[in-house]
Amino acid sequence: MAEKEIPNVIIGRLPVYLRALRHIQAQGQQTTSSQELGEMVGVSAAQIRKDLSQFGEFGKQGTGYNIAFLVDKLREILKVDRVWDVVVVGMGDMGHAIARYQGFANRGFRVVMVFDNNPALIDQKVGEFVIRDARVMVRAIHEAGIKVAMLTVPASAAQSVANQLVEAGIKAILNYAPISLNVPHGVLLQYIDPSTGLQRMTYYLD
Amino acid sequence: MAEKEIPNVIIGRLPVYLRALRHIQAQGQQTTSSQELGEMVGVSAAQIRKDLSQFGEFGKQGTGYNIAFLVDKLREILKVDRVWDVVVVGMGDMGHAIARYQGFANRGFRVVMVFDNNPALIDQKVGEFVIRDARVMVRAIHEAGIKVAMLTVPASAAQSVANQLVEAGIKAILNYAPISLNVPHGVLLQYIDPSTGLQRMTYYLD
Repeated sequence: MAEKEIPNVIIGRLPVYLRALRHIQAQGQQTTSSQELGEMVGVSAAQIRKDLSQFGEFGKQGTGYNIAFLVDKLREILKVDRVWDVVVVGMGDMGHAIARYQGFANRGFRVVMVFDNNPALIDQKVGEFVIRDARVMVRAIHEAGIKVAMLTVPASAAQSVANQLVEAGIKAILNYAPISLNVPHGVLLQYIDPSTGLQRMTYYLD
Repeated sequence: MAEKEIPNVIIGRLPVYLRALRHIQAQGQQTTSSQELGEMVGVSAAQIRKDLSQFGEFGKQGTGYNIAFLVDKLREILKVDRVWDVVVVGMGDMGHAIARYQGFANRGFRVVMVFDNNPALIDQKVGEFVIRDARVMVRAIHEAGIKVAMLTVPASAAQSVANQLVEAGIKAILNYAPISLNVPHGVLLQYIDPSTGLQRMTYYLD
């Protein structure tokens, strides 16, 4: 697929552009410029124009971008013009917070199953979910055809659970455990790690 | 400062290298190569060599990198060879999870104060912390000289709380609210947003 040749670093910026665009759209704004968008997201206007030009012609010199149109195009490009079912594995504090998180609405995702291996948690409710036994996880994910998982288990368990998720057919893992994971080629992996976010700021502090 | 001229995108990769290096170090490994490190973090070996060369000569052709040395250098570069005090504002589910999170140990951060504006939460305990009244936040942060904050309030409150944090002297904000924030020049901002992490993967899914 030709679109896969676009550098991953560009793909990584598109969700940030989309978030900013939806923010100003929600405030009633209808058009924007690469300058304005750039200031919102901390990227140069030239970089934004270059990134977006990879996917077609979205703006006009002088009149800027129609926000609704650009939002629709970005949702389509990122394939979040649909809703992806997501499993959350690990119902400790972070898993609880994610199971009850309201921020996925309208962003392309919905949590549909949550798992843990702790007998004290299995069959308990978290938000609208009943925590399921991790022993049935591989089969349940496979049967439901779910491709996206969030991993919120302790670091010591993260690799073995990731292996099970891959076995179950998961193709994209968002890992909250503060540990580097190995996944086979063809499985995508992203990290949510507050320490790395903080460290890239402390570099600039005195 | 000359070091500030290094592109932000490179600085952003250093914490990821550091996390991976500490991982293999904890497993007893003493040396590594740009190839091995690259495979762990999903960056080309050439890019890793180029990134690290910005800061000096850390490896030798043929023998690779001494992990302990490189870890020490990266901690120094990122200024996490010290421990930064951090405040967490917003003691909902996510704030609770962060206040009790064990992942900051040895990564350069420790949570020292947590705040909320909900009377039902103020003075309650979360982990080892007592939730403090957000009305005293600006003064408490200022008096303690804290520079780093994690923002876990609802999206609707995030900008006004960010403004207060800036007023209190905070220089680095890690924002968990799913909304773009504006901060003045000289204040750093990073986002923890699971939807963007998921969206940069769904691009590649069918």
